[in-house]
Amino acid sequence: MMRLDHMLLEVDDVQVTLDFYMKVLGFTDGGPDGPFHMLRVNADTVLVLAPRHTPALVHLAFAMERDEFDAALGRIKAANVEYGDAFDKVGNNQGPAAESGAHGKTKSVYLYDPDKNLIEICYYEPVAA
Amino acid sequence: MMRLDHMLLEVDDVQVTLDFYMKVLGFTDGGPDGPFHMLRVNADTVLVLAPRHTPALVHLAFAMERDEFDAALGRIKAANVEYGDAFDKVGNNQGPAAESGAHGKTKSVYLYDPDKNLIEICYYEPVAA
Repeated sequence: MMRLDHMLLEVDDVQVTLDFYMKVLGFTDGGPDGPFHMLRVNADTVLVLAPRHTPALVHLAFAMERDEFDAALGRIKAANVEYGDAFDKVGNNQGPAAESGAHGKTKSVYLYDPDKNLIEICYYEPVAA
Repeated sequence: MMRLDHMLLEVDDVQVTLDFYMKVLGFTDGGPDGPFHMLRVNADTVLVLAPRHTPALVHLAFAMERDEFDAALGRIKAANVEYGDAFDKVGNNQGPAAESGAHGKTKSVYLYDPDKNLIEICYYEPVAA
């Protein structure tokens, strides 16, 4: 099953946004993650809060099963869509590489959609027993 | 359980975006909905494609159970956050009103987050037997 795992939300003030979503909508604080701050909607989904830049960036990440990921990456390659192993390396056609998502560590590749929104597809590796 | 139900994605060309996500990511065509076009990620989530305007608008809709909705609306009122019964009527403090989401007809209210992103909270009414 393919699902939206996380999305970037650019904000003026991370703490003000955290307070609003936690107080009003009842979301929970997922803590800092490098330059970002995770705002958890539920077990499957986080909003990744980032200080606003110009131009605004839409980043959507879709999680899926490993076989769905392999099939999607196959379609990406077949369509000659550029991809990469980091958000700023679309076009190196490498990956997947380790990133982080709503459920922990992912294997991800990045690509642009037709509007240059930054799309990530990922899967979660099984946790060793 | 609170979850992201749909989000607006502003695009240059709806058909080009549809083709990309369907061909590359395997999403499905949810058909037109008024001025929008629904791009279905899975049974729970749709991306609502809209022709791009200026300024860019981020619209996030969160679906939840009725009791969670009532609690959230209570917090909105207690915090004196303006809300409304339509996307362009934040501040009339009316609602919820009928809208549409990933699962069909919703009861929704709209409000702005601290960055003036347009937030919607909604619940689905039980389907009559």
